[in-house]
Amino acid sequence: MIKDMKKTIYIVGIGPGGMDGMTIEAERVLAGADVIVGYETYLDLVRDKYPDAEYLSTPMRKERERCIMAFEAAGSGKSVVMICSGDAGVYGMASLMYEELGKRDCEEYELKVVAGVSAALSGAALLGAPIGHDFCVISLSDLLTPWEVIVRRLKAAAEGDFVIVLYNPSSHKRADYLKKVTDILGEYLEPDRICGIARLIGREGQDKWLCRLDELSEVGADMFSTVFIGSSTTRIIDGHMVTPRGYK
Amino acid sequence: MIKDMKKTIYIVGIGPGGMDGMTIEAERVLAGADVIVGYETYLDLVRDKYPDAEYLSTPMRKERERCIMAFEAAGSGKSVVMICSGDAGVYGMASLMYEELGKRDCEEYELKVVAGVSAALSGAALLGAPIGHDFCVISLSDLLTPWEVIVRRLKAAAEGDFVIVLYNPSSHKRADYLKKVTDILGEYLEPDRICGIARLIGREGQDKWLCRLDELSEVGADMFSTVFIGSSTTRIIDGHMVTPRGYK
Repeated sequence: MIKDMKKTIYIVGIGPGGMDGMTIEAERVLAGADVIVGYETYLDLVRDKYPDAEYLSTPMRKERERCIMAFEAAGSGKSVVMICSGDAGVYGMASLMYEELGKRDCEEYELKVVAGVSAALSGAALLGAPIGHDFCVISLSDLLTPWEVIVRRLKAAAEGDFVIVLYNPSSHKRADYLKKVTDILGEYLEPDRICGIARLIGREGQDKWLCRLDELSEVGADMFSTVFIGSSTTRIIDGHMVTPRGYK
Repeated sequence: MIKDMKKTIYIVGIGPGGMDGMTIEAERVLAGADVIVGYETYLDLVRDKYPDAEYLSTPMRKERERCIMAFEAAGSGKSVVMICSGDAGVYGMASLMYEELGKRDCEEYELKVVAGVSAALSGAALLGAPIGHDFCVISLSDLLTPWEVIVRRLKAAAEGDFVIVLYNPSSHKRADYLKKVTDILGEYLEPDRICGIARLIGREGQDKWLCRLDELSEVGADMFSTVFIGSSTTRIIDGHMVTPRGYK
């Protein structure tokens, strides 16, 4: 009985772009929301579909305030859904919401994460099948992670011959980071290692490029891009980036 | 004009379980299929919803034959959709379909991959937010990959302090593999490293467990399970496995 009375906040990944990449479960959960919380750009993607919901937002870097907003709305008895692009669990709001839950009465609130298609998967679909075998996902944003940790992971990923998927490969302040990455990886990988870039996946202006590792930093990946660096078995088939499932 | 005349085969990830975890795009593509190709277990998940489609299947380990079947059906002018559980690009059929495309006339056929929610994401949503920061995905199946490659990747993942997601953690023939893995990782990671198991995600009998690394091989992960091994920052919050987005 007490369990049933918990206030549930849903944290929903809406996939790569518009409504199309969202799961049926995500759509159903959003349809039942009194309040939808999220970053403004993502709210704009769903606003037309759910015109009766109340929308709450905070700017970028105010993610913790956004979480508090969601708990407050749920506390007032409203059914609350927080949305993220891609998947809420991959560099999304799910972990931050759990951190905020940990500061509160866990008997009062519960969180439910509804998984979505993260850019590693949607970008891969666009490029062909680059993550058909073991892969790593690494964010190049050093806003919350020391650069040394990122470098350690890049080196480990190269040592392990993983396909490497880079999130947040570039921004205005980090315009040279992809060059730094290719310099580091260049010590381990051959210069003609196959790479791919997927940009604005599922949105207007969607595009993709294939290139060599030594060309990667020149292709123009930006904050809307996801970067894929192939493993030793990755190859190009009919203009697509493909990593075979096996070695035999 | 010639481009428009290509025969398109869709390769669709249907997500973790029933229809609910599928994207809206996947649903729309399936609704337009004359022929749906897949492993029997996955066909059974969609058969009721699309009763008018023709269903084609091959047993496990006959994946290449399944691809050939799809190309033959498309060649005869039918609209063909191949389905996979989770995401078609992660240990799925997408890379094998591209390999088969490479043997054929690429002017005649084209492939389109529709991304789905892979078990790393759906399992994470069930457990909390274990992949909130950088992570690796490694399959323990040595059917197509030499065991030495798997070991090299496990060691690299530990060196890089990644969260590690293990697909195919166990089977009848590989009942002791998870023990081997924890022995290897035990040289790098503390015995109380937080781990999680998600089983039958989105299906009847869905379940989850949290444990320590030194307990992991005893919890009973099987071929329906996905295993999560935390990074140094992973912790438990309100019974959920959470890896914070950052270090600060």
